[in-house]
Amino acid sequence: MSTQHTPNKSDSSDVASETPPRHLQDTPTPPETGDDCHTHGYVQDKKKYLARLRRIEGQTRGIHRMIDEDQYCIDILTQISAVNSALENVALALLEDHLSHCVTHAAEEGGTVAEEKLAEAAKAIRRLVKS
Amino acid sequence: MSTQHTPNKSDSSDVASETPPRHLQDTPTPPETGDDCHTHGYVQDKKKYLARLRRIEGQTRGIHRMIDEDQYCIDILTQISAVNSALENVALALLEDHLSHCVTHAAEEGGTVAEEKLAEAAKAIRRLVKS
Amino acid sequence: MSTQHTPNKSDSSDVASETPPRHLQDTPTPPETGDDCHTHGYVQDKKKYLARLRRIEGQTRGIHRMIDEDQYCIDILTQISAVNSALENVALALLEDHLSHCVTHAAEEGGTVAEEKLAEAAKAIRRLVKS
Amino acid sequence: MSTQHTPNKSDSSDVASETPPRHLQDTPTPPETGDDCHTHGYVQDKKKYLARLRRIEGQTRGIHRMIDEDQYCIDILTQISAVNSALENVALALLEDHLSHCVTHAAEEGGTVAEEKLAEAAKAIRRLVKS
Repeated sequence: MSTQHTPNKSDSSDVASETPPRHLQDTPTPPETGDDCHTHGYVQDKKKYLARLRRIEGQTRGIHRMIDEDQYCIDILTQISAVNSALENVALALLEDHLSHCVTHAAEEGGTVAEEKLAEAAKAIRRLVKS
Repeated sequence: MSTQHTPNKSDSSDVASETPPRHLQDTPTPPETGDDCHTHGYVQDKKKYLARLRRIEGQTRGIHRMIDEDQYCIDILTQISAVNSALENVALALLEDHLSHCVTHAAEEGGTVAEEKLAEAAKAIRRLVKS
Repeated sequence: MSTQHTPNKSDSSDVASETPPRHLQDTPTPPETGDDCHTHGYVQDKKKYLARLRRIEGQTRGIHRMIDEDQYCIDILTQISAVNSALENVALALLEDHLSHCVTHAAEEGGTVAEEKLAEAAKAIRRLVKS
Repeated sequence: MSTQHTPNKSDSSDVASETPPRHLQDTPTPPETGDDCHTHGYVQDKKKYLARLRRIEGQTRGIHRMIDEDQYCIDILTQISAVNSALENVALALLEDHLSHCVTHAAEEGGTVAEEKLAEAAKAIRRLVKS
């Protein structure tokens, strides 16, 4: 999708691994020089986003526990819908930040970069709508 | 929604808490005598469901890390869509198990119980479709 | 999907055609003897369903007109969301009727038919959730 | 939502009516002087959009007929999913055109207009994701 920030690409792919490579957080992330967005839109609200994700993580742990305790299927489904809704809200907020920062900046510069950024955002929206 | 298994109701509500009450797993869960489904449909595949949830938990942790490391918004959105899709698949599998066990059993018995189970399942489907 | 009602299969495929074969409505539809559902769940509310569909048809015509008149994109998107929501509500109502009639009947009979009906309903739910 | 094109506002509200006011198409639509988008993004592909909508209209008419002919519920659900998917695709295409025209233009001008356009687009995306 975005080939511009190769430094992080490698750990992006193993996102599903149970044990995130902790050491990565000790070594500073290399500056994303190739990226058109020098500061990501969401960075200002980073704390809020992290708190929301932490909460969602707790909710998925809760669903795991409900299954482990043989709880009632319908109640588990209710929790899954709640997590899905919470994740969608995070995605929509990130997307809005992205549109108002990266995409807007690219639009000001114009040219191929602008087109690429828009096409990329459109694809992300499509995935959200269709998922 | 389901008032029949009050024993577990209390911890169902604090599902989002970060530290699940571990002690609950030491004391055996009281039998769900009030529940029409003596064995939940998903119990046979419990191990598989738990593994899937564990994986989803790892994915949400991954999203948290991506935000923490200021990774590219679009890549985060891609991961969120992936988690949403994984959660939906779990929900659809649970629902199918539920329909083929609890709802079918209730249908065989007929009467108000059958109607209630169906209405309950329909509501869960609505939440999934609309979320 | 359902091979049991071959009589209507042919026109089911050209559903998108602009000129529905009118003559079909003059000749009575042959009884669906192969179908396990002797009366479809939705038949009781047929009038209501037809009225809802008629309204949705009017709404899609309205969207066509909005584009034809170069109306504002966002207003068109609002209308599309409204039609999507209306269609989903029809689908959810049909599904509930289907579960409480055809699937329940099949469940009472048990065996392969019951399993097939459930698998079929599960697939339809999946399509609704994923679309 | 958009207060800038009052001329068309009145007929936008009766979109669901079965008989669109034909006379409106004889009198030329007044120029949308208040609108920031002098040419809508989708206008270039207008013919294609109109054809897609015409097809969707035919599909909804087909669903109406399926119900009228007591066809099998699951087949009707399949058609509804197809129409929903087609409508979503139209919406996503319109949205992309909108982002690359109106929103980009507004971004170039900057200020409150840009912010308003982005907030408006974000709301439309939210409705699409949530519907």
